[in-house]
Amino acid sequence: MRNLQITLTAIALTLAAGSAAQAEEGMWTFDNFPIARANQTLGTNIDQAWLDRVRLSSVKFGGCSAGIVSGEGLVMTNNHCVATCVANLSTPEVNYSETGFAPRTREDELKCPGGSAEILTDISDVTERMHAAGAGLEGQAFTQARDAEAGRIEQEACAGDATIRCQVVSLYRGGQFKLYKYRRYTDVRLAWAPEDPAATFGGDLDNFSFPRFAIDAAFIRLYENGQPVATPTHFKWNADRPVEGTPVFVAGSPGATQRLLTQDQLMTVRDVVLPMDQLIASELRGRLIRFSEESEENAFIAMDPIVGLENTYKRGLGRMRALTDPAFMTMKAEAEADFRARAGAADPWSELAAVQPVARELYPAMALLEGGTGMGTTSPGGNSQLFSWARTLVRGAQEREKPSAERLPEYADSRLAAVQSGLFAERPVYPSLEQVRLEWWLSKTREWLTVDDPRVRGLLGRESPEGLSARLVEGTTLADPAVRRALWEGGLAAVEASEDPLIRYLLSIQDETRAIRSEWETRVQAPTDRASEQLAALRFRAYGDSVYPDATGTLRLTYGKIEGSDVPGQRWGPFTTFAGLWDRATGAPPFDVAPKLLAARDRIDGDTVMNMTLSSDTIGGSSGSPVVNEAGEILGANFDSTVLTQRNAYGYDPNVNRSVIVTTGAVTAALRDVYGMERLVEELGVE
Amino acid sequence: MRNLQITLTAIALTLAAGSAAQAEEGMWTFDNFPIARANQTLGTNIDQAWLDRVRLSSVKFGGCSAGIVSGEGLVMTNNHCVATCVANLSTPEVNYSETGFAPRTREDELKCPGGSAEILTDISDVTERMHAAGAGLEGQAFTQARDAEAGRIEQEACAGDATIRCQVVSLYRGGQFKLYKYRRYTDVRLAWAPEDPAATFGGDLDNFSFPRFAIDAAFIRLYENGQPVATPTHFKWNADRPVEGTPVFVAGSPGATQRLLTQDQLMTVRDVVLPMDQLIASELRGRLIRFSEESEENAFIAMDPIVGLENTYKRGLGRMRALTDPAFMTMKAEAEADFRARAGAADPWSELAAVQPVARELYPAMALLEGGTGMGTTSPGGNSQLFSWARTLVRGAQEREKPSAERLPEYADSRLAAVQSGLFAERPVYPSLEQVRLEWWLSKTREWLTVDDPRVRGLLGRESPEGLSARLVEGTTLADPAVRRALWEGGLAAVEASEDPLIRYLLSIQDETRAIRSEWETRVQAPTDRASEQLAALRFRAYGDSVYPDATGTLRLTYGKIEGSDVPGQRWGPFTTFAGLWDRATGAPPFDVAPKLLAARDRIDGDTVMNMTLSSDTIGGSSGSPVVNEAGEILGANFDSTVLTQRNAYGYDPNVNRSVIVTTGAVTAALRDVYGMERLVEELGVE
Repeated sequence: MRNLQITLTAIALTLAAGSAAQAEEGMWTFDNFPIARANQTLGTNIDQAWLDRVRLSSVKFGGCSAGIVSGEGLVMTNNHCVATCVANLSTPEVNYSETGFAPRTREDELKCPGGSAEILTDISDVTERMHAAGAGLEGQAFTQARDAEAGRIEQEACAGDATIRCQVVSLYRGGQFKLYKYRRYTDVRLAWAPEDPAATFGGDLDNFSFPRFAIDAAFIRLYENGQPVATPTHFKWNADRPVEGTPVFVAGSPGATQRLLTQDQLMTVRDVVLPMDQLIASELRGRLIRFSEESEENAFIAMDPIVGLENTYKRGLGRMRALTDPAFMTMKAEAEADFRARAGAADPWSELAAVQPVARELYPAMALLEGGTGMGTTSPGGNSQLFSWARTLVRGAQEREKPSAERLPEYADSRLAAVQSGLFAERPVYPSLEQVRLEWWLSKTREWLTVDDPRVRGLLGRESPEGLSARLVEGTTLADPAVRRALWEGGLAAVEASEDPLIRYLLSIQDETRAIRSEWETRVQAPTDRASEQLAALRFRAYGDSVYPDATGTLRLTYGKIEGSDVPGQRWGPFTTFAGLWDRATGAPPFDVAPKLLAARDRIDGDTVMNMTLSSDTIGGSSGSPVVNEAGEILGANFDSTVLTQRNAYGYDPNVNRSVIVTTGAVTAALRDVYGMERLVEELGVE
Repeated sequence: MRNLQITLTAIALTLAAGSAAQAEEGMWTFDNFPIARANQTLGTNIDQAWLDRVRLSSVKFGGCSAGIVSGEGLVMTNNHCVATCVANLSTPEVNYSETGFAPRTREDELKCPGGSAEILTDISDVTERMHAAGAGLEGQAFTQARDAEAGRIEQEACAGDATIRCQVVSLYRGGQFKLYKYRRYTDVRLAWAPEDPAATFGGDLDNFSFPRFAIDAAFIRLYENGQPVATPTHFKWNADRPVEGTPVFVAGSPGATQRLLTQDQLMTVRDVVLPMDQLIASELRGRLIRFSEESEENAFIAMDPIVGLENTYKRGLGRMRALTDPAFMTMKAEAEADFRARAGAADPWSELAAVQPVARELYPAMALLEGGTGMGTTSPGGNSQLFSWARTLVRGAQEREKPSAERLPEYADSRLAAVQSGLFAERPVYPSLEQVRLEWWLSKTREWLTVDDPRVRGLLGRESPEGLSARLVEGTTLADPAVRRALWEGGLAAVEASEDPLIRYLLSIQDETRAIRSEWETRVQAPTDRASEQLAALRFRAYGDSVYPDATGTLRLTYGKIEGSDVPGQRWGPFTTFAGLWDRATGAPPFDVAPKLLAARDRIDGDTVMNMTLSSDTIGGSSGSPVVNEAGEILGANFDSTVLTQRNAYGYDPNVNRSVIVTTGAVTAALRDVYGMERLVEELGVE
C-alpha cells in the first residue's frame, strides 16, 4: 500500500549464527553487489559493466520481473504474469487462456489494459536528506515528515515527465535511502502466450514443487508512440541444452522478505497474521471453487482469481510450515542469540516485544479495514476491483485537497501518475465475481472483528453482507472507465455529489478506516520503525556491511548454480524434459496436456529440457526473472520455487532453497513446434 | 472412532502449578465426586443419594446431554441437539426447523430416525482384568489385547439384551478401567422444538459468546414398546427467576479434554492438527455457503451442515487462540515445570517428545484416510453419509469374518448393536450435498498428501475428485435402507459381490486406509499410551488422588455458581432477558426474531431471563446438560460456552471459563406464550 514504507524491511539475517550471508544467499542491490565474492564462489568473471547491462535488460512488469530479449522491445516473462492481461483481453467466446495467444504479425499484438513496464536507469543516495527530515521527531510526526520528504525528492527528480518514475526506497530499515529512477512504458502489448494448461500443467498440485513440467513463459513488447521501443541493450537468447553446475544470475524484483524479524515478531506472524490470512483465504477459495462449478461462464470468470488465490495460499502454507518447523526455528533462535550477545547493552528487542501485544490486537482490524500492514495478505474489499477503484476515487479526491506533503503518501504528487493509469485502465469487470468478493470480505470482517464492534456496525449498518454486497455491485457504474475518469477529474466536489452507491459507501466508511490506520501507525508502525532502525545499526556494527537489505519489491540480483536437490523427501536432479511431461499426463485436469501442445508431440524432441532448478535466492515477485549466465545470455525465466523454499521469507536455508525455471529451450520449442511463432524465433536470433 | 481408546485421555492437569483442582474446576465421575469439597465451596449439602438421583435423571442423547423432566419420559435437551432429527423429519415443503415442531397431542410426537438415548445405571471397576490382559505385552500387541479384553467384558455383561449397553471406559489414561452400564432406548421421539431462528438467534456470530438471546432448547420423549417410558426419577422443573450466586451442578457427558498433554504434544496440536483441520474446514465452509446460495432447496439442505461446521470451526478458533495465547501457555509451561520437578528421575516427557515428529508426519494421512486420531476433527469421506455407510458395510463385513477379539474394536460383538442401529436408520440423503463433501475430501486429501503419494493414486486412480465424487454419488443405491440392511446381513459375500460403486470403492481403498491406521497405532498410539500411563502414575504420586480424569464422552458432574464475567473485553452480568432480545434484533438474519416468537412479544414478560452464565467446567458434549440446584431442581440446559472458554480443552482457567445456559423460565415462556404447548407446561408441573 505504501510504496515508501515497507513495514518489515530490514537488513538480512543469515541463518548461520554469527556469520554474514552464506555462499549463495542474498538478494543484492545492483549498487552493492558482491562482485568479487560471487566470482570467487562461482568461478565467474563478471564486472560492473556486466551488472549495468543486466540491470538495463531487466524489466519490472506489474508485480513480476522480466527480461528484454531482442532489440525491438521484446520481453520474456511468465505466463502467470500475463494471466490478468490475457483474461482482460478474452471473452468466454474468444478465450486466449484456453487457446493461447499467437499473433501472426506484430500488428496483431494486443495492448494489455493498464499494463506498464519499467527499467531501472539510476540509483542515487538520498540518505542524508531523509535522515535530516526526520531528525528530532517522534511517532507519527516522524513517519509523516519522512513520507513528505520522500514525496518531495521524487517530485523534484521526476515531475512533469510521464516516462520517468521516481521512488525513494528505504533499505536496511532506514539505514539507507536510495532514489530509484525508472524509465516507464505504459503501452505494453501481449506478443505471445501459450495455452494456459501448457503453462499451468499440474495446477495448484504441482505449484511450488519439482519435478515440474510447465511452459510458464510469455512475451510482451514495449511500445512507445505506437512503435516498438528500440532496445539495443538486451539479453542474448541462448536455447542450448543447460548444463548442471552452470553458474547463473537471476535479476528481478523480489517482493518482500522479513529476515530480520525478531523471534517475538515472528511469533506474531505465526500466531496471528498467517492463521487469519490463510483461514479466510481458504474460505474464499471454497466459495470460488463452487462458484466456478456453477456454469461455464463462471468457470471462465473465476479461473484467474482462483489461480492467484491458490498461489498465495500455498505460499502461506509454506510459511506456516517454516514457522512451525522446530529445526528451522531453532536456527533462527540461535542466530538471534548470537546477535544479541554481540549487541551489548542495547535492547531494541524489548521494544519490539512490547509492540507485539498491540500488533496482535490490531492486526485483524488493520488488515481487513485498511490493509498495508506489510505483514500479511488480507486487504479491504476482498480484492474487489470495483471497491478498489471506489476507494481510490474517494481517497484520491480527499487527499488531493491537501498539499502533497500532508497527504497519505500513496497520493503524493509523485505517485499520482501511477494511480491514474491503474484507475483509467479499460478492463472487464464481472459483477458476479465482485459480489462474491465483497460478500466474503464483509462477512469475514464481521466475524473477525465481531458483530458488536462499532466499526462493523459502521460497515454494515442494518444490512447483511449478502444484501449490502448485492446492492453495491448492482448499483454502481464504476465499471465504466469514463465514469471513473469523470469522478477523478471532478475531484472532491464530484465525488461528494455522486450518487453511485459504492462511492457513497466508501465515503461513509472513511472515518473508521482512517482511524485504524492512524492507530496502527502510532502504536505499531512508528515504534517498530524506530526499534528496527536501531537494530539495523547494531547489525552493521556486529556483522559489517557485507549484508544485503531485505527484499522491497525493487531490482535485485541473486546468484547460484543449476542444481538439483538432495534432502529427504526432496531428491531430484535439476532437469525435467518433454518426455517426462508425456509420462506424467493423465488426461484429467490439471494433468491434461494442452491440446496444441499434445498435437505437437511428434515434432518436439522429448529430450528437450523443460524446467530446471537453481540454488539462487528468490521469492514471490521474482516471477519472470531472467536467468543469465556469465556471458549475459538468458537461459530461462524463474517462475516458481519449492514449497520448502517459502521459508526464505524469514531466512535463507541453503539445504532447501531452490528456484524453478522454464528454459529458453522449452520456450523455443513451444514457439516453433507448437504455436507457429517462427517470426519470434527469428527475432530471438535462433538459427 | 474407537469407543474404548480415547487417544488423549489423561488425568486432569490444573493450571495452577503445584495444586490439585481449583475451586470450581473438574469434570468429575459420579463414583468419585468430591462431595465434601463441593459442599464446602458452594455452601450446599448434597449427598450420595442426591448424586444417584441426578445420575439416573441424566441422559446421553447422541453426542449431547439431556435431563428427564417428567415422570412420562419427557427429556429436555438443546435445539441444536435435535437439529439433525428435525432436518431428517423435514422436507423443503414441511420444514420444521423453519416453523418449529409443536405437536398438538402426544400421539403427534415423531420418532427421530436413528435416535437413541441412554441412562447410566451402573459403574463397576474392571481395572484388574484390563491390566492383566496387557501385562508383559508391547506395541500393537498390547493395544489389541486390551481391546479384546474390553470387548469380552462388555459382551459378558450385556450380551443378548438390546436394552442394555456396556462400555469399558479408560480413565486416568489407563490408570483405571470402569465398566459403564447404560439403559438404552432406541425409540426417541421429538416432543417439541422451537423455530430454528429462535434457538439460533445471532447465528455463528453470537455462537460462543455472551450476552446471548437463544432459546436453544427442545424436548424429546423416551418410548419403549410404543409407550412413553415411566421415569419416576426425574428433575423437578423450576421456572423461577434465577438468582446470581446460586450454587449449581451440571450433569452431562463432556466429549474430550486434553489437559494432561505435555508441552510437546500441545505444540503438535498447535502446529499441525489445528491448522490443517481448520484450513480445510474453512474451505468446506466456503463451498457450502456458496452451495446454499444457489437455490432455496440447497439452502434447506445445507443449513444443518453449515451450522454444525461453523460450530466446530469456531471452537477450533478458540483453541488456536488458547494455544497461541502467551499468558495461557506460560501457565501451562509452569504447571509442567512444577510437575517435572516433583517427578524425579522418571521422564515420560522425553518419550512423548520423541513421538511428536512421527505424529506430525503421519497426522494428515491418518486424519484424512482413517480418522480416529483422537486429536482433531478431520475424518475420511468428508462426513459424507453415504461414504460412512459404505465404510461400515465393507469394514463390518470384513471384520465379522474374524473372532470378536481379533477385530477392529469398533466391530467387536458388544458394539455391533449400536453399529447396526446407525446403519439401518431411515434418514434422507441429499446427493448434491454428498457430492460436495466427497469432492472436497478427495481434493483436500490430494492436496495435503500431495498428488504423488501412492495412497492418493490409490484413492483417485486416473479420476479427478470432481469426476470420481460425481460417479460414486450418482451410482450408489446405499441411500435405500433396505439395500444397506441386505448388504449387512449378506456379510462379506454380499459386499464383495456388490456392484454398487461406493461399495466397490471402499473395498478398493481398504489396504491403504488400514495400513495408515496400523502405522499410526504402532508408531504414535502405542508409545503415547505407554508414556501417558506412566505420566498418570507419576501424577497420582505427585498430587494425590484428588484429581479428575480428562473428559471421555461419559457422564460427569461439574459445579459452579450463576455468575457473570469480569475480564477485559468480557464484562457482563449473568443474565439476559427477552427485552434484550427485542433490542438486539435488526430484522436481518441472523439477527431476525423468529416470526412466531416475534408475534408473541406482547404476551411475554420482557424481564424474563432468557440465558445465563455459570462458572462450571464444561466443554463440547456438555450441550443439553441439565443445570441443577441443591434441591435437584432443573434451572436450565447448558448450550454453549464463551470462545475464551474453549481453552478448557487444555486447561481450566477460572478467569474466563463460563458456560452459557438457556433457562427453564425462558423455555416455559416459549412453550406457553409462543408455541401453544400448554400440555407440556402442565406435564412439567408449572402452575
